[in-house]
Amino acid sequence: MNWQKFYRFNYERGHEMMSLLESEVVSKGKKAKKAAGVLSNLSSEKKNQALLGIASALLNDMENILQANEIDLSNLLASQNHTQAFYDRLQLTSSRIEDIAKGIHEIIDLDDPIGEVTSMWKRPNGLQIGKVKVPLGVIGIIYEARPNVTVDAVALSLKTGNAVILRGSSEAINSNRALVQVIKNALAQTEVPVDAVSLIEDISRETVVELMQQKEYLDVLIPRGSRGLIQSVVKNSQVPVIETGEGNCHTYIDDLADINMAKKIAVNAKTHRPGVCNAMETLLVHADIAPKCLAGILQEMLNRGVEIRGCTATKEIFSEVILATEKDWSTEYLDMILAVKVVSSLGEAIDHINKYGSGHSEAIVTNSYQNSREFLAKVDAAAVYINASTRFTDGYEFGLGAEMGISTQKLHVRGPMGLEALTSTKLIIYGEGQIR
Amino acid sequence: MNWQKFYRFNYERGHEMMSLLESEVVSKGKKAKKAAGVLSNLSSEKKNQALLGIASALLNDMENILQANEIDLSNLLASQNHTQAFYDRLQLTSSRIEDIAKGIHEIIDLDDPIGEVTSMWKRPNGLQIGKVKVPLGVIGIIYEARPNVTVDAVALSLKTGNAVILRGSSEAINSNRALVQVIKNALAQTEVPVDAVSLIEDISRETVVELMQQKEYLDVLIPRGSRGLIQSVVKNSQVPVIETGEGNCHTYIDDLADINMAKKIAVNAKTHRPGVCNAMETLLVHADIAPKCLAGILQEMLNRGVEIRGCTATKEIFSEVILATEKDWSTEYLDMILAVKVVSSLGEAIDHINKYGSGHSEAIVTNSYQNSREFLAKVDAAAVYINASTRFTDGYEFGLGAEMGISTQKLHVRGPMGLEALTSTKLIIYGEGQIR
Repeated sequence: MNWQKFYRFNYERGHEMMSLLESEVVSKGKKAKKAAGVLSNLSSEKKNQALLGIASALLNDMENILQANEIDLSNLLASQNHTQAFYDRLQLTSSRIEDIAKGIHEIIDLDDPIGEVTSMWKRPNGLQIGKVKVPLGVIGIIYEARPNVTVDAVALSLKTGNAVILRGSSEAINSNRALVQVIKNALAQTEVPVDAVSLIEDISRETVVELMQQKEYLDVLIPRGSRGLIQSVVKNSQVPVIETGEGNCHTYIDDLADINMAKKIAVNAKTHRPGVCNAMETLLVHADIAPKCLAGILQEMLNRGVEIRGCTATKEIFSEVILATEKDWSTEYLDMILAVKVVSSLGEAIDHINKYGSGHSEAIVTNSYQNSREFLAKVDAAAVYINASTRFTDGYEFGLGAEMGISTQKLHVRGPMGLEALTSTKLIIYGEGQIR
Repeated sequence: MNWQKFYRFNYERGHEMMSLLESEVVSKGKKAKKAAGVLSNLSSEKKNQALLGIASALLNDMENILQANEIDLSNLLASQNHTQAFYDRLQLTSSRIEDIAKGIHEIIDLDDPIGEVTSMWKRPNGLQIGKVKVPLGVIGIIYEARPNVTVDAVALSLKTGNAVILRGSSEAINSNRALVQVIKNALAQTEVPVDAVSLIEDISRETVVELMQQKEYLDVLIPRGSRGLIQSVVKNSQVPVIETGEGNCHTYIDDLADINMAKKIAVNAKTHRPGVCNAMETLLVHADIAPKCLAGILQEMLNRGVEIRGCTATKEIFSEVILATEKDWSTEYLDMILAVKVVSSLGEAIDHINKYGSGHSEAIVTNSYQNSREFLAKVDAAAVYINASTRFTDGYEFGLGAEMGISTQKLHVRGPMGLEALTSTKLIIYGEGQIR
């Protein structure tokens, strides 16, 4: 008997056994961290080749993906506990998969931020200090429904040299499993390690809790989905979190606004896609202009099926209004409901926004130079608009390509998270023997 | 009786009573948030005037400050539970206060980052989108001993338009109270609201716990001090945290190093100030050069009073070495102790650093172009040096002015935290009626 071989065999089996005892989250975390080390030093060319491979594979394996999605859809129908909107978000079609593949090509075309030296300076002692953009390392993302998020998250992460751990929702588990399998098969043909992408397949609550504790393997955790999910992650995570998405957005119609523009912007901000975070929830109108414009705007809203909850001054101008309560000012409806308040000044509008807003997107409609400046300076939010609909707060609309969500926190990144948001910095110092 | 006046009086008293029922942390948090709103729109001129006022007041009221510090110092002596180094960190002298005031002048001279538009671009639909630097809002800082941190934190925060809540240690409470009183008196003469600076005077553990929950009033929490304090805050805070300071730093002497330079850098990195986070804790030496340089370096370390814990290969070269255990590789001694390991390749050195290091400061000494490039690319740390002592990782040494600590996390800021680290961004969007 070859004892050396025997011991080696048992040593390796022992390692395998050990990793069987590890939880799925820890084991995938470890592998992701190792993959991130390789990935962080791959050239843009190599990373783009991997993305290209993924885009082709999605098209080639479309049948498998659609079949898996079909299972998720029939499970959803069987559960009898869903809205049409939810079904729609979960559904994949061949044209949607084509769009997803096209999205990857757009990310390929973006500049790779990694390796960029954003500044370099020399100190009096001759030390030359530079700041270089580097990957964050391993990104965790916890999200609900939409399978396209799976591919967007993978493409953005790989492009920026990061490994990614995906924890999707139970409703999309079959679709996600099929997508990640296709992605991993594609990666196996490239220099990007297969372990750079992994899906947590155990969709019990415990794996979310466990992800929040993986400080050793995860560099950042991004929750996307319901307010409940996001707040729970923000509250309990030991891994640094980027808070996303809650959007209690306002449009303020100044006394010096163009009435037609105000109507167009308000109606678009509310009705274009009411279920998303950059939709308007409360309309604020200056008392001096309200008698001239509010009835027309609210009639148009009503025609489009919007329920209106207004203050008493609003009701005096337009009677088909439910009286708003305090709670309405702080509610993100994500629905065809609008809160309306008449305010006596720009200052009152700004105070209202800073008190009740979630710091997402806020707009003023005005022709006054001074008022536009004051609104920009004093409103505390990720995106502040003059004379445009809040609906533009979005990675594609801002020209950043796809996005990992919209940050409503102030640390690290604020607003749509494109490639830049997935980078960190490293200080590099060139010396010639300097000591202190 | 004037009833209106009576009601108003009681309404106001009621408010005062309410705030008496609030905890110190919540009450000061609320006031800080309000002050931050005012402060965020003050001009650089106004903020600098306030800093100037503080610098003068520190000099004018020096006697009061020194008396208060005297109380802290005698309490410390009475406790009979302190080191000389701790006493030294706590002590203020007239020349130290002069240095602190000088530090404020240096911060006044730095450019104010607030209001800088770092980029602006135009979209095909005509929207013009810009990124502006804005204050974070309210900064909380939890720190130990050193009263100079109190003033540095105030000056950096006010310069960047942020309000600050200070939670110092019990040992420095009298000094901090006196310093903050002087600062607030000075602010009362300026346009910076007095509430922009506050000290939590209740130095029980509960106020630390409470600060970690003030998501509503605090935008960031920075813990500075022992590893225990920092890890507890990172683990338990709901407010976003910037992790600072742990420094298990390495110097790697490559086989192609200049032997004299290697000795000079290693000795400096270990002995110049062993108690700080950028001091070297482990020396790694390539096996091919170890026989030529290691004995000389370790003899010099020994002469300077350094205890040496080495691997077996180290002990073969230099016998006056305690054998290192696994634990030594991951220990931040902050003391005159050095771990030493002989490695067989650059790759082994990099793997060791990435495994045991804390991501603070790492150095290579080499004359090889390729090896310097590989070390820079593959070592994952805030600051990576070629041919210089790790002791330079510091706000002043990097030319950033004073600092709020040294971030060892990858999100938001990495390395010394100067003014830039205390800012967030706001997206401003100029439209002409655009809708989607």
